[in-house]
Amino acid sequence: MEDLLLEADQAANESIVPDEDDSGDMQDEEELVNFQRKILPIDALDLGIKSFQEQKLLNAAGKKKQHLIVCASLIDKVPNLAGLARTCEIFSARTLVMPNLLVRKQDDFKSISASANDWIDMEECKEEGLLSWLYQKKTEGYVIVGLEQTASSKCLTKMEFSAKTVLLLGKEKEGIPIEFLSAVDQCIEIPQLGIIRSLNVHVSGAISIWEYTKQMMQQEKG
Amino acid sequence: MEDLLLEADQAANESIVPDEDDSGDMQDEEELVNFQRKILPIDALDLGIKSFQEQKLLNAAGKKKQHLIVCASLIDKVPNLAGLARTCEIFSARTLVMPNLLVRKQDDFKSISASANDWIDMEECKEEGLLSWLYQKKTEGYVIVGLEQTASSKCLTKMEFSAKTVLLLGKEKEGIPIEFLSAVDQCIEIPQLGIIRSLNVHVSGAISIWEYTKQMMQQEKG
Repeated sequence: MEDLLLEADQAANESIVPDEDDSGDMQDEEELVNFQRKILPIDALDLGIKSFQEQKLLNAAGKKKQHLIVCASLIDKVPNLAGLARTCEIFSARTLVMPNLLVRKQDDFKSISASANDWIDMEECKEEGLLSWLYQKKTEGYVIVGLEQTASSKCLTKMEFSAKTVLLLGKEKEGIPIEFLSAVDQCIEIPQLGIIRSLNVHVSGAISIWEYTKQMMQQEKG
Repeated sequence: MEDLLLEADQAANESIVPDEDDSGDMQDEEELVNFQRKILPIDALDLGIKSFQEQKLLNAAGKKKQHLIVCASLIDKVPNLAGLARTCEIFSARTLVMPNLLVRKQDDFKSISASANDWIDMEECKEEGLLSWLYQKKTEGYVIVGLEQTASSKCLTKMEFSAKTVLLLGKEKEGIPIEFLSAVDQCIEIPQLGIIRSLNVHVSGAISIWEYTKQMMQQEKG
């Protein structure tokens, strides 16, 4: 696709004289796309790109996707993964990160996720690749929020989410292993009043996704 | 019990002269209990009453129970009932109303509920008795809140919960049947941005319980 654009752009350069010196940085995708808008024969291609971009920005219901990435790489129970897929689709999360994409083929995943698989973007990241994935997301401007009860966790009622958030969920029993906490910018916890140690990971994830969504809705309004 | 107290109290009256005229209103439990504190032989009985009251008001973790009753009479899937039991225990709901208490004996209930069964008060109310149960709760001062997408549903972000709330959850597929909506004081709904029709009932219930809990925590603080 990029090669094709480059060729088309070079051909276009021969027929028009651009105002600016564009001899450098031809690989820069944004400049390339901006430049092509001036040239008629490329419009169809340009529309294709825009449509592709829009598809990435809008969900299947035509609503804007949120900047939230939910990372479930540490979760291994299918009902939790499938439940999260359904919840992520409904709250229009950008991506759900799964430990293994093959799980989507399982019948129980399909039935519990209520076909979310067809509508939500999923990406695979196994536990062994998680630390470098988290650092990669930080370079992309994401704030890594870990849902874990630690000494420095912030109560969910006091958390102000950034739009670009990665919500990192912990393992069903042990939570988030210490080696990943180094990559986490902020841990959050849900105040719990009972004798049972913690909420189910899908439920605590859903409550956090809801809080994020509500804050983004309020920001948009005000 | 009350007769016993009355007898004990009358006997006590013969041996001491109270400062106030207490000839009237001897049936008033609070006055009775307050008076008995002066008299030694009744103290043990008095402690018994207090302990009983405290057991009903505090949860197993020693925290105050909320005035929230979660009604799951219309739910029939064991994982949803068991998940709700766990969530209700953690948020210190007063009671979880079940369609059938026998379900608690099932292995999947025990494992999914993470032993919540041992800690949360449960009550049985089948669908056929639900309407009269709801009206009974109204006479006890509870506001009946139905979690359902209707023409007059209030968005959860705008809902102000009363402390005495019954949260009525709908059936997994059909939601709350119309015959029960007549008993509902207010329907609420969670804004949903995706293409899938609705959140899982345990998840939407948990988000609503969380919102209620947060509001009660804020009221207590401020």
